[in-house]
Amino acid sequence: MKISKSTLSGEEYEIPSNLDDSVNIDNFIEANHGKKIIVVQGLGFVGAVMSIVCANSPKDEYAVIGIDLPSPDSYWKICSINNGIFPIISSDNKVEKYFKNSKEKENFYATYDPYAYSLADVIIVDINLDVQKDSSHIAKEDSIKFSVDLSNFKSSIKVIGNNCKQDALVLIETTVPPGTTELAYDILKECMINRKLHTGKINVGHSYERVMPGPNYIDSIQNFYRVYSGVNKKSADRVEKFLKTIISTKDYPLTRLKNTNSTELSKVLENSFRAMNIAFMVEWSRYAEESSVDLYEVVEAIRMRPTHKNIMLPGIGVGGYCLTKDPLLASWSKQNLFSSSSGLSMSENAVTTNDNMPYYAFQQFKSLFKDSKIENKKIFMLGVSYAPDVGDTRYTPVELMYRLLMKNSCELYLSDPFINFWEETQQTVSKNYNDINKINPDAIIISTGHSEYKENK
Amino acid sequence: MKISKSTLSGEEYEIPSNLDDSVNIDNFIEANHGKKIIVVQGLGFVGAVMSIVCANSPKDEYAVIGIDLPSPDSYWKICSINNGIFPIISSDNKVEKYFKNSKEKENFYATYDPYAYSLADVIIVDINLDVQKDSSHIAKEDSIKFSVDLSNFKSSIKVIGNNCKQDALVLIETTVPPGTTELAYDILKECMINRKLHTGKINVGHSYERVMPGPNYIDSIQNFYRVYSGVNKKSADRVEKFLKTIISTKDYPLTRLKNTNSTELSKVLENSFRAMNIAFMVEWSRYAEESSVDLYEVVEAIRMRPTHKNIMLPGIGVGGYCLTKDPLLASWSKQNLFSSSSGLSMSENAVTTNDNMPYYAFQQFKSLFKDSKIENKKIFMLGVSYAPDVGDTRYTPVELMYRLLMKNSCELYLSDPFINFWEETQQTVSKNYNDINKINPDAIIISTGHSEYKENK
Repeated sequence: MKISKSTLSGEEYEIPSNLDDSVNIDNFIEANHGKKIIVVQGLGFVGAVMSIVCANSPKDEYAVIGIDLPSPDSYWKICSINNGIFPIISSDNKVEKYFKNSKEKENFYATYDPYAYSLADVIIVDINLDVQKDSSHIAKEDSIKFSVDLSNFKSSIKVIGNNCKQDALVLIETTVPPGTTELAYDILKECMINRKLHTGKINVGHSYERVMPGPNYIDSIQNFYRVYSGVNKKSADRVEKFLKTIISTKDYPLTRLKNTNSTELSKVLENSFRAMNIAFMVEWSRYAEESSVDLYEVVEAIRMRPTHKNIMLPGIGVGGYCLTKDPLLASWSKQNLFSSSSGLSMSENAVTTNDNMPYYAFQQFKSLFKDSKIENKKIFMLGVSYAPDVGDTRYTPVELMYRLLMKNSCELYLSDPFINFWEETQQTVSKNYNDINKINPDAIIISTGHSEYKENK
Repeated sequence: MKISKSTLSGEEYEIPSNLDDSVNIDNFIEANHGKKIIVVQGLGFVGAVMSIVCANSPKDEYAVIGIDLPSPDSYWKICSINNGIFPIISSDNKVEKYFKNSKEKENFYATYDPYAYSLADVIIVDINLDVQKDSSHIAKEDSIKFSVDLSNFKSSIKVIGNNCKQDALVLIETTVPPGTTELAYDILKECMINRKLHTGKINVGHSYERVMPGPNYIDSIQNFYRVYSGVNKKSADRVEKFLKTIISTKDYPLTRLKNTNSTELSKVLENSFRAMNIAFMVEWSRYAEESSVDLYEVVEAIRMRPTHKNIMLPGIGVGGYCLTKDPLLASWSKQNLFSSSSGLSMSENAVTTNDNMPYYAFQQFKSLFKDSKIENKKIFMLGVSYAPDVGDTRYTPVELMYRLLMKNSCELYLSDPFINFWEETQQTVSKNYNDINKINPDAIIISTGHSEYKENK
């Protein structure tokens, strides 16, 4: 008997051995008669919210089925959604509102059964595509070692191809190594051949999301610019038509790019640009320290120039799902999907530099103690999320800080208003930080800049 | 007999052996009785225009003396100014207007005689501070080799210190390695001691210019944000008071930083940020070519995001006086003025990458010819300036392109609306490009994006 435990409530769900959910799915479709069917593959930080945005489309034309795996990591999300609890804590009130609406209208259902794909007009791919990197470059001058494995992604596409209608629209939103949507198209056509269906009818497109899981979570989908493409004109037209039904394209016009490589590259370039700009400032922050310069004051002065508005400030580190891996996806694609003899060395170096930032922050922190003796100190950490006002611990820089403190036998207290359970470290996190006075710690680290901490100085 | 030849008109001026210009200076001061005296050291792209901005201050309170060296490179500028010809061709009509005004009001005079410093209330330092770099990193993976020599700069400050009033304001606008204004302050105090004057009265500040010698040349001084600092509060106050008389600080408020290291660092950081962003895109432009992506289209789409507005597009190369050297000034300062064990490797690499861009552009260009045979081809180059609508060839990326074409025995025709004589290559440049039809070249390279070329497609 396999169990999946909610990271929100701690509730445990038994994963069923019979994975046929067709009766429930058919009932759901029946109840939503006349509506177009959207299936969202992957109920993570993008897919879950994308689902409720679709379920709340202005013309109310969609019934949405979210699919995730019946695995210990994911199954609880399916149950949580169907039980009326959204699987993500968010600082954006709209999330709760949209979810509630969809439950009231009964046009959002979650399942693990691929049967749902066979009913879909539109299938949105929002699964993860990870980079495997070891941490050998931390605290060293080493360049980063990493690999990308497309096999999971490919099998997910295959599941779609083995089930979907021959004229469905498959819209990939996952951040992928440029070139991947073309590979997915090949897989889908192959599936059609095997199923003795037409290969010319399937529609495949790529339109990356720019989701920010903070206070504007919903708006980062609904009220923001989108870039899209299709494997052919017909596909691109379908993507355009679909996106117009869920995004406020009057205020945020869509941009069509020439091919799917372009939108894929655009996404990883965006994030590499950010990663690079942060990494660039790391060197300068050391320099500023050496020369008695207040870098915050300097950066504020520089930002007055319109051409320099995007100059960044360095913090404890760079985290989140995108900036830590997207430059690597690009470099990998360049060498492996386009046979280039060289990767993107500057973008790779940016990741290495940024990955090292918490290590440096730890050293700085340690140096604040007399004789650098940090052992057995009581330390209260405010925030474990990777960014302010976000309940997302994926690749949070706080993790390395946490591990280094643990290694030095510190006594740690964790708090975060958006996290109940820190999956990556398997630690319970307290919502409030009133215990500080009771605990009387040797040091408090504001490890994430949540508004709550700023407001309650 | 030494000669100085105007790069504008070709006119030759004999450099006098007697360098006493005190009679003319005294007459000028006499004629401007009641006005405060500003002396601008250095009549280059910043100093010449700074001079006419001061001479046209809203309250008309200044008489301005520009000083440059009686050397073959610079003496002609002094003569040119006193003969009523501004030493720079500019696409900004205001330049001519401001210069004419100053000549009519007779409140702008140029000289080589340091005697002028003894009369100045404000001395503005606008001389060059160069980086010596060899070109061994071009076309190789080598890191850049360079050195910085402060001795010229220091002697220029010494000349001021040996002549100036003890309570003058010495305002350094030159882009210097952070830490240099403090050194200048020490030199000035030493001079005061030698002259048996008070050391506590001298005022020293740093306020870097953000001059763009294009169509908004004057506005880039008068109507733009300024950052400033002083070696002490008294100095900073004096700088502030002065800047308010020449800059529209109501619309473009001043920013005071804590110390002179900060403003010096701010300037080189600004330019390193730009250099870095360009270098970053170089790798991506190769990648885009490999993956059939139109990078221009992609960058346009990305720029819709406010957080990504400053993403740049790669061109034939990076030139100009600032981006090619400022990251190196910073890296040098870090190691030599603040005894750091490491420089700014990312910023240095950015310069290396950018310096190599014209070499790559040449290779691309060469590959367009059958069998890459480029020898003896007739090539018409449109633009030799480093940037659009600017008459400035310092470190123009066109130079490397030009040299590579010459090395390959190409027959070259040069044209630029803003350049008569290309000093660095000692070539005459034609103003118009109507000869193209007559010459019937094998190829035309639009090497600088002047508006004229864009308008006359």
